[in-house]
Amino acid sequence: MKQIGVGLLGFGTVGAGVVDGLRKNRRLMADRLGVEVVLRKIADLDTTSDRGVPVDPGMLIPDAATVIHDPEIQIVVELIGGTGVARKFILEALNAGKHVVTANKKLLAEYGEEIFSTAEKNGVDVYFGASVGGGIPIIRVLREGLAGNQIHTIHGILNGTCNYILTRMENEGAPFEEVLKAAQEAGYAEADPSLDIDGFDTAHKAVILASLAYGFHVPMAEVQVEGIRNLAGIDVQYARDFGYRIKLLASIQREGNEIEVSVHPTLVSAKHMLATVNDVFNAAMVNGDMSGDTLYYGRGAGRAPTASTVIGDIGDIARNILAGGPRYTRGVCIANTGKLAIRKAEDIESRFYVRMMVADRPGALGIISTILGHCGVSIRAATQKESGETGTGYVPVVFLTNVAKNADLCRALKEIQGAGVVSEAPVKLRVL
Amino acid sequence: MKQIGVGLLGFGTVGAGVVDGLRKNRRLMADRLGVEVVLRKIADLDTTSDRGVPVDPGMLIPDAATVIHDPEIQIVVELIGGTGVARKFILEALNAGKHVVTANKKLLAEYGEEIFSTAEKNGVDVYFGASVGGGIPIIRVLREGLAGNQIHTIHGILNGTCNYILTRMENEGAPFEEVLKAAQEAGYAEADPSLDIDGFDTAHKAVILASLAYGFHVPMAEVQVEGIRNLAGIDVQYARDFGYRIKLLASIQREGNEIEVSVHPTLVSAKHMLATVNDVFNAAMVNGDMSGDTLYYGRGAGRAPTASTVIGDIGDIARNILAGGPRYTRGVCIANTGKLAIRKAEDIESRFYVRMMVADRPGALGIISTILGHCGVSIRAATQKESGETGTGYVPVVFLTNVAKNADLCRALKEIQGAGVVSEAPVKLRVL
Repeated sequence: MKQIGVGLLGFGTVGAGVVDGLRKNRRLMADRLGVEVVLRKIADLDTTSDRGVPVDPGMLIPDAATVIHDPEIQIVVELIGGTGVARKFILEALNAGKHVVTANKKLLAEYGEEIFSTAEKNGVDVYFGASVGGGIPIIRVLREGLAGNQIHTIHGILNGTCNYILTRMENEGAPFEEVLKAAQEAGYAEADPSLDIDGFDTAHKAVILASLAYGFHVPMAEVQVEGIRNLAGIDVQYARDFGYRIKLLASIQREGNEIEVSVHPTLVSAKHMLATVNDVFNAAMVNGDMSGDTLYYGRGAGRAPTASTVIGDIGDIARNILAGGPRYTRGVCIANTGKLAIRKAEDIESRFYVRMMVADRPGALGIISTILGHCGVSIRAATQKESGETGTGYVPVVFLTNVAKNADLCRALKEIQGAGVVSEAPVKLRVL
Repeated sequence: MKQIGVGLLGFGTVGAGVVDGLRKNRRLMADRLGVEVVLRKIADLDTTSDRGVPVDPGMLIPDAATVIHDPEIQIVVELIGGTGVARKFILEALNAGKHVVTANKKLLAEYGEEIFSTAEKNGVDVYFGASVGGGIPIIRVLREGLAGNQIHTIHGILNGTCNYILTRMENEGAPFEEVLKAAQEAGYAEADPSLDIDGFDTAHKAVILASLAYGFHVPMAEVQVEGIRNLAGIDVQYARDFGYRIKLLASIQREGNEIEVSVHPTLVSAKHMLATVNDVFNAAMVNGDMSGDTLYYGRGAGRAPTASTVIGDIGDIARNILAGGPRYTRGVCIANTGKLAIRKAEDIESRFYVRMMVADRPGALGIISTILGHCGVSIRAATQKESGETGTGYVPVVFLTNVAKNADLCRALKEIQGAGVVSEAPVKLRVL
């Protein structure tokens, strides 16, 4: 049976998962693919630590270039992460005529155009299934299964750390800081959790999904990103009272020739399937003009699930090589007619959840309703909560709006603050 | 831009969806694929009915052979269905060197070996994404995304008609016959509903999934099939009282060197994601040794969703042709080492739900418990219900068992019937 050689750059958690998977399922994969995938070399600066998987003597070396230029290696798998040497090595591999598999969302979100144009120039494949959704085949689905669909919307829970924190905040009524600490102790959150909880990890993934769905590179700088760091436990509870759960949601949707790409804590109806995605699990719901709603659910991170997708990508490239040539040199589909643009924050339309601390005196609510009304924001549901602290003279009032323009609501909230009927800046969250 | 010609056999509901989709998203697909997919000819005996989609004059003809042998057609799409002319035309197309896309689950379940070996002989691709799950990319996921996984289990809700009926039975407490009639009037069930409600449609799909997951052809005759025709509304309600919903589930799982392939009405915990799949929607949960649990959800049937998957397959073959050659001539993965066998019904192990009408007299329950115990069936939960009809001398008792061997439970139920403590044959359902 023909052999395809694989070289691995980066022998961390996912790298060890790939080594483990390629070894234990080697025979099975060969039967399925009709070609044998053989791991030939691994490059990592740390050549001594035990990763819990056996490695043949001499296979693990510190020098990436040796792996990249090994003539017996056709597929280079980059699992270093970040935008430093990972970028350099990937470009070097592509220019050496090697196919590349990567799980590096940050690199693709920031340098995707460079990577894909280099691949195209060299006529080689770039697969990046594990860059979004870990073990969930959302990249494959967008690139292949839904290739005949206009994509209307993608809504994704794409960060396991945030979803774990939000699930615990809801189930236990615990505040964010306390749950974050527990998540860090349990290994579900990094010591520096900013990339996750401030929404940037989700934003990187949103950029990749949006680029795939709409065929043009979405600049990170144009993505609206709001994390969960400032989310109050009380809003999680109030949302629940309305029959909603709060999820950190990537929202990608087309309106005319504008594409919204944003990341926000978002109220999701408890009846929506995305509301049932708990703990570290991820999911994405995609609505296509032909497929209708489809949902993909699974483990969004972790050694084995991420390795599963990396190995699926390796298998695909092996099939491509066997069949005669690469299939995805262009990486993201180039379907943009030049007309599409990213929608500005102020133009985004959505339903919203708004909480205000309203002066407990006659007429205050009337003033608020009047301002909302003349700004074009209509109320779908409202409830005045019992004040947690008595005697402050202010009571919490929560609104759910109908679909409103973000700019209109912002203007209304500013006016309401100016009218002296609220004690602090209102809290505004999106509603799916 | 290079063109790939498509010929369509069968211009029914899904065929019209494919024609519609290829037309309206033609430009988008060309941008994505880097090759233009052009529908050249459609064969259908009915060349006059209006399908609601415009067709160029001369494109719709009654003769399939003209389509198959058109030198400008590289991909033949079979949407006739059944195992008669569909089989003949597909074999003819493969032997003429044409790649084939089909949504024909019955044909693949019964004649898959013949189809795939003919494709392999001719070095052409067979894609069949729409044969299982309509718009859900479950075939693609098993064949590609999870190629590096040992598949432990697949549990699928794969028939929209049954799921619609079960959802209404649960929500409305209505009996099966009444809901079936309503489903037929609403167009969700065929005039002859047997293929759906007796489980054979689900079984065809289970055969295809099992063959893909385990790499050998699973004969339909060895699949355990039980439909929902005899499901009593009272069991739907009792299951609900225990915190379960009843779904018609395809269960595919490996135990050692045996594969279970079965279709049964099955109790699913209300907390399980499959329990949230309602109405005509379908879903499959796949557990792989690396991926862990993943779930795929969407519309399992219908014109546009099924056409979406057919068009995705066409796009894949177009990419293959562009890249230089076919990738899936073998159709199902040939990963069987010759050791795998289908598990016999009696050897299947599962948790079970059992309802009996038990004599309302001292000692009756003791006799039942004793028999279950010495047959090796242990009880996890039990509840004695209020008798619906007073004065019969029998009351309904419902058990949930721990994992038990099917043969052991059957033997116990037979003994219990022989012991004169129940008024009728017990009802037995599986529990996921």
